[in-house]
Amino acid sequence: MGKRLLLLNGPNLNMLGQREPETYGSATLKDVVDMVKEVCEQHGYELDYFQSNHEGDLIDRLQKANNEAAGIIFNPAAYTHTSIALRDAIAAINPPVVEVHISNVHKREEFRHHSMLAPVCLSQIVGFGVDGYWLAAMGLIQKIESEGRM
Amino acid sequence: MGKRLLLLNGPNLNMLGQREPETYGSATLKDVVDMVKEVCEQHGYELDYFQSNHEGDLIDRLQKANNEAAGIIFNPAAYTHTSIALRDAIAAINPPVVEVHISNVHKREEFRHHSMLAPVCLSQIVGFGVDGYWLAAMGLIQKIESEGRM
Amino acid sequence: MGKRLLLLNGPNLNMLGQREPETYGSATLKDVVDMVKEVCEQHGYELDYFQSNHEGDLIDRLQKANNEAAGIIFNPAAYTHTSIALRDAIAAINPPVVEVHISNVHKREEFRHHSMLAPVCLSQIVGFGVDGYWLAAMGLIQKIESEGRM
Amino acid sequence: MGKRLLLLNGPNLNMLGQREPETYGSATLKDVVDMVKEVCEQHGYELDYFQSNHEGDLIDRLQKANNEAAGIIFNPAAYTHTSIALRDAIAAINPPVVEVHISNVHKREEFRHHSMLAPVCLSQIVGFGVDGYWLAAMGLIQKIESEGRM
Amino acid sequence: MGKRLLLLNGPNLNMLGQREPETYGSATLKDVVDMVKEVCEQHGYELDYFQSNHEGDLIDRLQKANNEAAGIIFNPAAYTHTSIALRDAIAAINPPVVEVHISNVHKREEFRHHSMLAPVCLSQIVGFGVDGYWLAAMGLIQKIESEGRM
Amino acid sequence: MGKRLLLLNGPNLNMLGQREPETYGSATLKDVVDMVKEVCEQHGYELDYFQSNHEGDLIDRLQKANNEAAGIIFNPAAYTHTSIALRDAIAAINPPVVEVHISNVHKREEFRHHSMLAPVCLSQIVGFGVDGYWLAAMGLIQKIESEGRM
Amino acid sequence: MGKRLLLLNGPNLNMLGQREPETYGSATLKDVVDMVKEVCEQHGYELDYFQSNHEGDLIDRLQKANNEAAGIIFNPAAYTHTSIALRDAIAAINPPVVEVHISNVHKREEFRHHSMLAPVCLSQIVGFGVDGYWLAAMGLIQKIESEGRM
Amino acid sequence: MGKRLLLLNGPNLNMLGQREPETYGSATLKDVVDMVKEVCEQHGYELDYFQSNHEGDLIDRLQKANNEAAGIIFNPAAYTHTSIALRDAIAAINPPVVEVHISNVHKREEFRHHSMLAPVCLSQIVGFGVDGYWLAAMGLIQKIESEGRM
Amino acid sequence: MGKRLLLLNGPNLNMLGQREPETYGSATLKDVVDMVKEVCEQHGYELDYFQSNHEGDLIDRLQKANNEAAGIIFNPAAYTHTSIALRDAIAAINPPVVEVHISNVHKREEFRHHSMLAPVCLSQIVGFGVDGYWLAAMGLIQKIESEGRM
Amino acid sequence: MGKRLLLLNGPNLNMLGQREPETYGSATLKDVVDMVKEVCEQHGYELDYFQSNHEGDLIDRLQKANNEAAGIIFNPAAYTHTSIALRDAIAAINPPVVEVHISNVHKREEFRHHSMLAPVCLSQIVGFGVDGYWLAAMGLIQKIESEGRM
Amino acid sequence: MGKRLLLLNGPNLNMLGQREPETYGSATLKDVVDMVKEVCEQHGYELDYFQSNHEGDLIDRLQKANNEAAGIIFNPAAYTHTSIALRDAIAAINPPVVEVHISNVHKREEFRHHSMLAPVCLSQIVGFGVDGYWLAAMGLIQKIESEGRM
Amino acid sequence: MGKRLLLLNGPNLNMLGQREPETYGSATLKDVVDMVKEVCEQHGYELDYFQSNHEGDLIDRLQKANNEAAGIIFNPAAYTHTSIALRDAIAAINPPVVEVHISNVHKREEFRHHSMLAPVCLSQIVGFGVDGYWLAAMGLIQKIESEGRM
Repeated sequence: MGKRLLLLNGPNLNMLGQREPETYGSATLKDVVDMVKEVCEQHGYELDYFQSNHEGDLIDRLQKANNEAAGIIFNPAAYTHTSIALRDAIAAINPPVVEVHISNVHKREEFRHHSMLAPVCLSQIVGFGVDGYWLAAMGLIQKIESEGRM
Repeated sequence: MGKRLLLLNGPNLNMLGQREPETYGSATLKDVVDMVKEVCEQHGYELDYFQSNHEGDLIDRLQKANNEAAGIIFNPAAYTHTSIALRDAIAAINPPVVEVHISNVHKREEFRHHSMLAPVCLSQIVGFGVDGYWLAAMGLIQKIESEGRM
Repeated sequence: MGKRLLLLNGPNLNMLGQREPETYGSATLKDVVDMVKEVCEQHGYELDYFQSNHEGDLIDRLQKANNEAAGIIFNPAAYTHTSIALRDAIAAINPPVVEVHISNVHKREEFRHHSMLAPVCLSQIVGFGVDGYWLAAMGLIQKIESEGRM
Repeated sequence: MGKRLLLLNGPNLNMLGQREPETYGSATLKDVVDMVKEVCEQHGYELDYFQSNHEGDLIDRLQKANNEAAGIIFNPAAYTHTSIALRDAIAAINPPVVEVHISNVHKREEFRHHSMLAPVCLSQIVGFGVDGYWLAAMGLIQKIESEGRM
Repeated sequence: MGKRLLLLNGPNLNMLGQREPETYGSATLKDVVDMVKEVCEQHGYELDYFQSNHEGDLIDRLQKANNEAAGIIFNPAAYTHTSIALRDAIAAINPPVVEVHISNVHKREEFRHHSMLAPVCLSQIVGFGVDGYWLAAMGLIQKIESEGRM
Repeated sequence: MGKRLLLLNGPNLNMLGQREPETYGSATLKDVVDMVKEVCEQHGYELDYFQSNHEGDLIDRLQKANNEAAGIIFNPAAYTHTSIALRDAIAAINPPVVEVHISNVHKREEFRHHSMLAPVCLSQIVGFGVDGYWLAAMGLIQKIESEGRM
Repeated sequence: MGKRLLLLNGPNLNMLGQREPETYGSATLKDVVDMVKEVCEQHGYELDYFQSNHEGDLIDRLQKANNEAAGIIFNPAAYTHTSIALRDAIAAINPPVVEVHISNVHKREEFRHHSMLAPVCLSQIVGFGVDGYWLAAMGLIQKIESEGRM
Repeated sequence: MGKRLLLLNGPNLNMLGQREPETYGSATLKDVVDMVKEVCEQHGYELDYFQSNHEGDLIDRLQKANNEAAGIIFNPAAYTHTSIALRDAIAAINPPVVEVHISNVHKREEFRHHSMLAPVCLSQIVGFGVDGYWLAAMGLIQKIESEGRM
Repeated sequence: MGKRLLLLNGPNLNMLGQREPETYGSATLKDVVDMVKEVCEQHGYELDYFQSNHEGDLIDRLQKANNEAAGIIFNPAAYTHTSIALRDAIAAINPPVVEVHISNVHKREEFRHHSMLAPVCLSQIVGFGVDGYWLAAMGLIQKIESEGRM
Repeated sequence: MGKRLLLLNGPNLNMLGQREPETYGSATLKDVVDMVKEVCEQHGYELDYFQSNHEGDLIDRLQKANNEAAGIIFNPAAYTHTSIALRDAIAAINPPVVEVHISNVHKREEFRHHSMLAPVCLSQIVGFGVDGYWLAAMGLIQKIESEGRM
Repeated sequence: MGKRLLLLNGPNLNMLGQREPETYGSATLKDVVDMVKEVCEQHGYELDYFQSNHEGDLIDRLQKANNEAAGIIFNPAAYTHTSIALRDAIAAINPPVVEVHISNVHKREEFRHHSMLAPVCLSQIVGFGVDGYWLAAMGLIQKIESEGRM
Repeated sequence: MGKRLLLLNGPNLNMLGQREPETYGSATLKDVVDMVKEVCEQHGYELDYFQSNHEGDLIDRLQKANNEAAGIIFNPAAYTHTSIALRDAIAAINPPVVEVHISNVHKREEFRHHSMLAPVCLSQIVGFGVDGYWLAAMGLIQKIESEGRM
């Protein structure tokens, strides 16, 4: 677990920038990766990234990160609200996870207000648009550095 | 998006005709495809079709249909009641989706009465057995034609 | 029970075309009757039709249809969600009933998502606008013919 | 369907022995397979086994077992509580399924108390640690033998 | 309010004997009237009777009974569970009302377990088949006589 | 829609003055009509009035008022809490509706605290006894005049 | 199972006549036994009777009645609302059981509105005061005689 | 308690006219005071008024009014839905309280539909905009005068 | 606490073999005791056994077992779902308790799905018929032996 | 009802001092009796005491106390939360009852927060450990003396 | 934290003796202070006291007591049921808090049955009228003395 | 609204560093102010700050900020979960508000999972400890700058 973060994105986030721009903005997933990469580089971290629409793939990737990443930035999208399997995967690994949501989920449908994952994550950033990703990176690196977790 | 529809079937529908015939009848998934194909041909439409037991595969296929299909006939089966990820995928694409259920789900267990997907679909056909598929095709083509959406 | 269908419409549907056209479209109840009549004639069926704002009238009419109609197309409108009396009336008669809703009720208020009648109906068509009526007629006739119920 | 059982394990069980040992103990998934294999051999049964983090893979494997296995021992882990698709898969196949949970789920979070699958399984063994697996094998074989189901 | 009872029957009870005989038995509404009339005559009471599928008609009839009947035997059928208007009508009049249900409603659907009317009725008889009507008449007459209410 | 209001009263209000006077006071429905008429005359308005115990009659009358009345004062009584059909009728017409309740419904049974109609009415007056009717007339006329709606 | 009924009374009914007379009246449990005995004798039946405050005693007595009584009149008092064990005992024996409540439980606290036992009883008589007992005896004997169950 | 009313306004109503004018209109709190003062003067009443964002201040002011005011017009704004302390304060004093809401709270968020205060107030006026205040004054004075409460 | 187990059975299980055989099978309680005794003897354990319909007796027996039994096999039957007193008794004693249910309670009524006792038991075996008892004995002995608890 | 109190203790309290001492402390039930006896003697009262694990025994004892005790100190333990029968017994007798809980039940499981008995008791003392018993005695004697109830 | 207690009273308790005497008795807040002072003096304790209708004032006062009081007697009145802020304040300070309610809140409205504060208080005394205050003082001093907390 | 932010802290946050350090850490409120001030200065912003235990004070301060601050960082602490009045205050003003929570509220009691304020805030930062404050400042300034809102 050297100086390396994982940026993980869940279902439908590959469509970022195309899908419902009034909710999610016009930045693409590549823009997000670049933003986070920049913050990482400024602090001497490398960045892995992965997106999938498959719950199982996300679980596999979280497990793989157990011995690789010092921390994880995760936007679980729709799986946030229903996936106990992702919750168990996060609980089973060591790196701290920051849950990010682009939109303010609390302004949307009732079923988006509850997160199955938040109780096993380190922290949550909600509603800053894609800026939430680099804020998460900054907060996560600060946490890792201050705890000498590397 | 020429004159092309997508027929999408969710988990366990590959077992159609074998599984609980008193609930689902004796027609197979191939019979269903043939029925819908026939309606399509009568109206000058082509038909793509796909079945998977994997939620992620269904999301991938819906995204792919975004630039291909003029409309989608979708029996999400068990994922109907729980998948926010499929809901988001449907909301993220342009072609109108008709939700089809072979059995009358309202006669069955409580948890089958609620659809996560219906609010983002165009319409729903429930309980006509496999005839629901070609009714969906007819209704969908009528909608597409009358809106000049092609 | 010769080759005869009943088209039954519940409260406020007499205002169709005038009332909330963004929800219900501009077709009138007479247009609906004509559409369904046309499908019936193509298949050699006659059509009775009736609309009332009175729950009791609708029950009376359903009971009367018991010995007259081979099948019933019923848009129960607001009574869908509350009327146990209509449910009992449908359960007490022989002709199969197709429940039709013009708008996609699942996109509307929470209290419109649940149907008291669906569990005793044959099937449901939701959200196809007034086209739902002739789709219902086609599906119903197909069902009647294939079961030799006449 | 000769004398053959399937041992199926759901998400995150590949991490058994590493993950939260205070909850799940120190035995690995390989240890579990060996234990169950031993019981099978004592009774003249062969054992297939499979683990996946993917709901769809588990459904595929259950369908495949329909014509192969005389019975199934299944720890669905997190999918226990949410998967209607796995429920439908189990209901659609013939071999009896024993649901096994390593920990006593009733001592844990509220959302782990309810099983979507139990109503379509033959039986449930909860809270015996990994011993639950071989108890399941013994109970299942007893059931198969006494019903002459082979 | 001389020695006169009212026997009131709600929606779909005109179909008694024809409708779901496994639930309601083969006696007709006329048989019921005759049974109750016989008990009345034995005790020197006259009997009025009325059936309607219309909630409003039942309210009108209850109001009319206010100055006519010494007691009312009422099977409100489906309106039992939803009608606050009938509840208000009963609360607004003087004669005691006995609520009768032919079937044991507690063995049926959840929504039939709760009565809106019971709290403003004198008493309830449930599940004795059509015998419930004459038991109600006997109990009601006993109550009226013992309270000198005439 | 000249200077004309409609005063509409629902089930059991024909018994006003006789029924539960400790809850509803001793004024009769005729007294109410006279009070409201007086306010109307002072402002140059005519008054239509109608009472029925039948939900369907109330819907019919609301529809008829669409082209006649500049505003409607409506005490829906027991139908307040259950009638989606009356809600749809109000939503389907143009004249603003003031919902009036004689008693303070919030001091009474739980099921009287919720109004199905309030969200589609202009406003509500609760608990002023029969004075609520003329207050409603004054408020409604003020609203109509100030919006030049006539 | 000759011509013999069992009259069973649950907790606190030994205090009948002393306890809360405004709710339960002034008749004692002995008065009740005498009333029911009289009806039994008129029809050639013998009567056993038993009261206990102990749930277990009531279960024991119900089991004992399995081979003795042609029918049972049971006022389970407070255990009505909570005892699954009494429910199972009733379901496990053959004689039909009539559930009797002296007061109109539906006018009382919310927790008295639901009966755990009603779904496994033949029928229910509620709110006739102690007259409910002899009405129950009459109805029960009628049922037994008409079914030739003796 | 001479001829004196208290006009009490709760949190954020000091911003009236500035805040969300599409919901609350353009009149200011001073306009409201002037309107109510005018009605008071016409009937020979004086008016005290007070606004605070502090729940405790509102309680203090209600207690102080106990010996001063003949009646109170109170818009508790957001505290309507949560404050048991205000409820207790109103219940503890003698002057009748009219609860006023400018907007139709029943058209807004679910949590605004329920009032903790209504059950201890005399009456409620909802959705008449700022006209609700002078209607409340008129209704309240009428009530006070007719009961000789001064 | 030598090598001794307690087999405890709750209400109505004395009727095993007679009661609802389609649910519980034809084995009697004596058959169950014999089966468990055999497993015990094979492992050098003695077996005490007790059945009661009385919740209090079962509590007394559990307390008595505290210094006698190395482990307890308990089928609490109907008390499973409601008894906090049995839960407290189990929590207050040292020997581990295995909860056994003959039928698959998750296929039955909703109120049988929840166990008050499971959170304080070691483990649960559900739905193996009477075989569940000896499976429980085997699992329990294995647990005791492996923990050197004797 | 001379100067005599009853100290009544429910299920599992015979194990006090042995059972979960971190929750209930190390004092035994005998210690509790002695403490309360001392307070009684200081005020010239005698003390009866009784403990049982049987709900029925507790009911019997409460009924017996009706003509003996001037007041009752009752720790109903687990029956607090479920027993309507104990509630009815308390409501049926005259002596005031103080409900005592040793631990602070509001810090424990959700199902221990609600008391079925509190609404029919005089008062409640919770969380003072075994000191709660003598506080109850002092409060109860004060109440009895001040009301001349002896 | 010498020998000093704080007596804290919440909203509307300044009106004690005037307000709803049938619920709260005729003693005033000054009487309460005097009673508690007397108990304190007997045990060598001083007493501070404070009442406010303002939630914020009560929080401020609790914080101030952190370094002053050995224990706190607190009647939070209406804030009991809603204030998380008071709960946090109590959790943040060291002195043990006894929650007192004059009336038996469990006999009153449903919303008074639940306390937000009880889980962070030491104990609760409910329904002893104003005697609850001195009982609380006695219990609290006993607890402090026995733990040498001063 | 020049380059000026407001840092607002709710109830009990004045005790930061003293109170429950395992939950909230050892930094004091002054440390927080200094951290945020530093970020502000780096971006040319000034910082106002305010803490209060009084809901009304917080509302007053939010209103005052309407014409002063370009953005607000707000930790509403316990009022987060209950205050509709703070919600209305935020909705009534222009500057965007970031809701900050020091601890991960989703790991704590159920009642801390829901925020009344989130739907009217711009965004939320949860669980980063006191680092959440400067992350909020950075995110807020980025938002303000990018929208030219100053």
